[in-house]
Amino acid sequence: MPSKPSGERGPVVPIGGAEDKIAARAVLRRFASMCSGPVAVVTTASLDPTTGERYRGVFGALGVEVRVIDIVVREQAESATHALDGAGGVFFTGGTQLRLSTILGGTPLAQAVRRLNAAGVPVGGTSAGAAFCSEHMIAYGKEGATPIAGGVTLAPGLGLTNRVIVDQHFRQRDRFGRLLAAVAYNPFAIGLGLDEDTAAFIGPDNVVEVVGSGAVTVVDAGSLEHSAMATAEEGKPVEMIGVRVHVLVEGARYSLDTRRAVPAPVVQAPF
Amino acid sequence: MPSKPSGERGPVVPIGGAEDKIAARAVLRRFASMCSGPVAVVTTASLDPTTGERYRGVFGALGVEVRVIDIVVREQAESATHALDGAGGVFFTGGTQLRLSTILGGTPLAQAVRRLNAAGVPVGGTSAGAAFCSEHMIAYGKEGATPIAGGVTLAPGLGLTNRVIVDQHFRQRDRFGRLLAAVAYNPFAIGLGLDEDTAAFIGPDNVVEVVGSGAVTVVDAGSLEHSAMATAEEGKPVEMIGVRVHVLVEGARYSLDTRRAVPAPVVQAPF
Repeated sequence: MPSKPSGERGPVVPIGGAEDKIAARAVLRRFASMCSGPVAVVTTASLDPTTGERYRGVFGALGVEVRVIDIVVREQAESATHALDGAGGVFFTGGTQLRLSTILGGTPLAQAVRRLNAAGVPVGGTSAGAAFCSEHMIAYGKEGATPIAGGVTLAPGLGLTNRVIVDQHFRQRDRFGRLLAAVAYNPFAIGLGLDEDTAAFIGPDNVVEVVGSGAVTVVDAGSLEHSAMATAEEGKPVEMIGVRVHVLVEGARYSLDTRRAVPAPVVQAPF
Repeated sequence: MPSKPSGERGPVVPIGGAEDKIAARAVLRRFASMCSGPVAVVTTASLDPTTGERYRGVFGALGVEVRVIDIVVREQAESATHALDGAGGVFFTGGTQLRLSTILGGTPLAQAVRRLNAAGVPVGGTSAGAAFCSEHMIAYGKEGATPIAGGVTLAPGLGLTNRVIVDQHFRQRDRFGRLLAAVAYNPFAIGLGLDEDTAAFIGPDNVVEVVGSGAVTVVDAGSLEHSAMATAEEGKPVEMIGVRVHVLVEGARYSLDTRRAVPAPVVQAPF
C-alpha cells in the first residue's frame, strides 16, 4: 500500500525478533511491500557494526533501497534526520531497547519518525526495535509464567501507539508472566507477546494482523475482575482474576478498539 | 478436618513441587492437619532411596505418622495395599509421573487409594505426584509460552478428579504454553498451573483453595470462541481465541463448577 489516504497514519509493525531473512521472509517481505520509497534502517539498538549492511542486503533482495542510520550518541540525532527525507519506511533493528530510548528519546530524529508515521509511512522494528515502537516499553524483566510484583520495568518508548505493550522472543524466552505484570499496571494497554519470526501489523484502523511462522499472544486485562498489582509485595506473585488470552497465528486479526479477535481463514489441507 | 460427613469425598491436593519442608511448611502443615491417621507415602515416582525417610521426618515433625510404600514393580502393588488399612491420608512424592501411571495404574493399590479418597481421606502429591492425581495427566511436553500442536502428551492418571489438568513447577519451568495446549484438547478440563511450594486444595465441593508461597494459574478454555487444535500442524502454534486466565495466591478460591474465582482476603499491611 504505497499510497495512503491523506490523514491516515502508517502501519506500526513490531516483530518478535529473529525474523526469516533468507527463505520465505514473510514478515520482511510484507513490510517491504508497504514501503513507498527507501527504508531508513536505524541500528542504534545494536552494537554489531555489520547490522546495517545485513539489512541493506535483506531489503535490497526484496527490491527496497536502504539508508542506514547508525546513531550511537544523542548529538548525532539532529544531523541524521536528513536521511529520513522522502523515506518510504523506517525500521529499528534489534539489540537493547534501552539504547533506543536513551539515545533517541526526545531527539529531532525521534520526532521526525513520529511525523513520518503520522503522515502514513510504515514504521517497524524487530526485538528491541519492536519494544521501542510503543509508548510503554518493557525495558527488562524477570522470565517465567507467573506475574511477579516488581518483575517488569517499563520505560517510555517512541510512542507510535499507546494501545499496546509489546514483548518479543515471547515463546522462546518464556515471557508470559512479565507481560501479565506489565498489563496489570494499567489494563488500558493490551499486551502483545510476539514469537520470533512473527509480527503484529497494526493498521491505521487499530486492527492487528498477524504475519509470520509463530504466534502472537494477546493478553487483555480489560475485563479484569480483580488485580492485586497495587498491593502485592515485591517479588511475590500478583493475583489477577479474569484475564483474556488469545493465541493468534498468521492471517488472524485483532481489533485494539473492540478487543475482539477473528481467527485466520481456514486453508483446506491438500488431501 | 479429621471427621467427614459420610458420602463426601476427601480433598485432592496437587502441589507444584519443592514444597517447604523445614520452615513455615504451609502446604504440608495444611495437608497434615486434614489427615485423621497415618499418611501412606508412595515413593514410586522417585528413584532416590531416601525419599520415604525424608517425608517420614517431615510429616513426623508435623505430628503425623508415616507408612512408606516403596513399590518399584507392578507385582508389589497387591501386597502393599495392607499399608493403606486405616490410613488417614495418602501422599505421592515427586519423580517421574510416567513411573506412577505405568507401575501403579490399574493395580489393587491404585484402586484402594481411589476408594479411600471416595470415603473422605485426603490424597495429595507433589510434582509428579500432583500430575498423577487427575484423570488426565501431562506426561511430558515442550516448554515455552505459546501452545504448540503436539507439544504436550497426556496420559491417563489416577483419576481422583477429571475436572482439572495439573502442571507443576509452573513459573519455574515456563509451562504456560503446554498447559494451554492440554486444555485446548477438550475445554471441559480446567488447567491448574502450580508454582513450586504452592498447592491447590480441591475440596469435595469442587472449590479449589490456594495454599503456599507462589501462585496457581487457572487456565479456563471453557469460554473459547475458537481453537485450531483440531487442524494445527505438528510443531506449529495453536490458535486459541478467548481463553480466561486467573493468577491466584494463597487464600484465593476457585470453583471448578461455576468457573469463578474469589480473591484472597486483603490483609492490612502492618504500617
